[in-house]
Amino acid sequence: MESSMTDSLESSEERLIASILAGVPCAGPAILLGAGHDAAVLRPSSGALDVVTTDAMVESVHWDDRLTPADVGYKLVAVNASDLGAMGARPGWALLCVALPDPPDTAWLSDFTTGLAEGLLAFDLALAGGDTVRAPGNRRFLSLTAGGRAARVIGRRGAVPGDVLWVTGWLGAAAAALLKPSPPEQLRIALARPRPPVAFGARLGESGLVNAMMDLSDGLACDLGRLCRASGVGVQVDETALPVHPLLLGSERTLALTGGEDYGLCFAAGAASTPRLLHLAAASDVSITAIGRFDDGDGPRLANGSWPSPSFEHFGHPGDADAF
Amino acid sequence: MESSMTDSLESSEERLIASILAGVPCAGPAILLGAGHDAAVLRPSSGALDVVTTDAMVESVHWDDRLTPADVGYKLVAVNASDLGAMGARPGWALLCVALPDPPDTAWLSDFTTGLAEGLLAFDLALAGGDTVRAPGNRRFLSLTAGGRAARVIGRRGAVPGDVLWVTGWLGAAAAALLKPSPPEQLRIALARPRPPVAFGARLGESGLVNAMMDLSDGLACDLGRLCRASGVGVQVDETALPVHPLLLGSERTLALTGGEDYGLCFAAGAASTPRLLHLAAASDVSITAIGRFDDGDGPRLANGSWPSPSFEHFGHPGDADAF
Repeated sequence: MESSMTDSLESSEERLIASILAGVPCAGPAILLGAGHDAAVLRPSSGALDVVTTDAMVESVHWDDRLTPADVGYKLVAVNASDLGAMGARPGWALLCVALPDPPDTAWLSDFTTGLAEGLLAFDLALAGGDTVRAPGNRRFLSLTAGGRAARVIGRRGAVPGDVLWVTGWLGAAAAALLKPSPPEQLRIALARPRPPVAFGARLGESGLVNAMMDLSDGLACDLGRLCRASGVGVQVDETALPVHPLLLGSERTLALTGGEDYGLCFAAGAASTPRLLHLAAASDVSITAIGRFDDGDGPRLANGSWPSPSFEHFGHPGDADAF
Repeated sequence: MESSMTDSLESSEERLIASILAGVPCAGPAILLGAGHDAAVLRPSSGALDVVTTDAMVESVHWDDRLTPADVGYKLVAVNASDLGAMGARPGWALLCVALPDPPDTAWLSDFTTGLAEGLLAFDLALAGGDTVRAPGNRRFLSLTAGGRAARVIGRRGAVPGDVLWVTGWLGAAAAALLKPSPPEQLRIALARPRPPVAFGARLGESGLVNAMMDLSDGLACDLGRLCRASGVGVQVDETALPVHPLLLGSERTLALTGGEDYGLCFAAGAASTPRLLHLAAASDVSITAIGRFDDGDGPRLANGSWPSPSFEHFGHPGDADAF
């Protein structure tokens, strides 16, 4: 925070920025020079690769009143951290853009900042700077850029026939919550407070055991198609092996395949790596499940040869390929 | 671009992303792995420091119909590149967030993408990825994160008494255009197509001649106060030395001090460096003007001891300290 932010002549936006910076971690090992200049300067890395990603969240498109402002702040960080983990990167820094109504709702901002701080702390990110603007039509718009460092390049292109397909955690809970106007808290929390296994993703990357990886944001039905296309492979998925969230009942159980917003990892690894993967997962307190085998077929298929068309909607937003 | 982007089953958003990626530079020396994964991977730097910044632009807040969609795309890049140059960094990569009406206006997007490409090419940036979302209330919202590399840390804190205050280029033209519903083209272009001296900023940073630097986005009246507060110094400004844009007449000439959106550089350097600075500027085809001298006084002052209060508005948005 630069000295102007506590100056008695400060503008309402300077106060707004100061209130954000005062509430969140702004310094960390990744940041050499943080907020208060035209740009932030990162601390030099020692041989690691820089990884960067950005994701936006828009009021009524990506959240509604099932999420508190603190949930929104937390989730904005979580979805970006998820992308870093999926690349095998350890998070380091973030830049925030917020478009808020004018005048800003200070109670909303305070709650949002609390959740933002929770997310930054949970995923080892520090806020290096950002931008605040007036919201068009008074609808809040948020975007976060997050950066981290990876030991090696992991992407979606490296899966080969014979690889095992793995997923982390339970599937379907967030999508089930989306379908309910008042979801029970155990489902709501899956939607509002996703816990992407970011540190595990980084360990997977460092292990050299993983050939391709991505996070599950739009559901297996959608995301697995992308992984197969990027790698030029097919995959036979064992539907009975899917780690369906235990609270899902009846037809809800299909959401493990067609739902989204799980923010778990989906990755491909050689079969010989299975013992080491299981050990790494146990040491990281992350559950992993083998749900299929890659081959030289045409994209993902279930046992009967079919594959559900991607149909997931984020708060009414069609399953979306929106990050690129 | 991943293969899914040309898949026959692609969604409207995949087509939207494909149309952006097809129109702009997506590969460059800074990018090891670009769009098509969860995050982009940057090419390792050789000893340089990574510098990152983000700026947002909102329809009717940061632009109106005096700017074409291509102007908006260009300017989104230029204002971020300006921040990199002000830190002495050479631009490398960018991440884009766009919120667009649903369905998107393809003519708008095509024109925007053309301007975005012009900006990326002009400032040596390549698009490494991004996110597309639906616009709240159908008002377009854009944010760009830009990254580059600097030889050393330059910020706002290093100005010392005795340093000379320099600015680049002409001042006041963009602010004059903002005051006119139909500005003459020579003024409009200053507003719509700012040309921040980014490469010169990087050369200044590499030269080691500069003690503090920032870009002029909210006008000298506002920005110089920030530089003085960050450095804990004062500065005596010679109003008669200001490089007022030659098209400004009468009272408009005060906009060189109180206007904004110039996107030139403002920097502090020891007096002994003047010959080398003039040589570097001439070699970079950038005009620089000495307009004051730093001292241990209280912030910026004119000859009569006064200083105008920051009053600049970006399209009705008070002079704004909004980037942090």
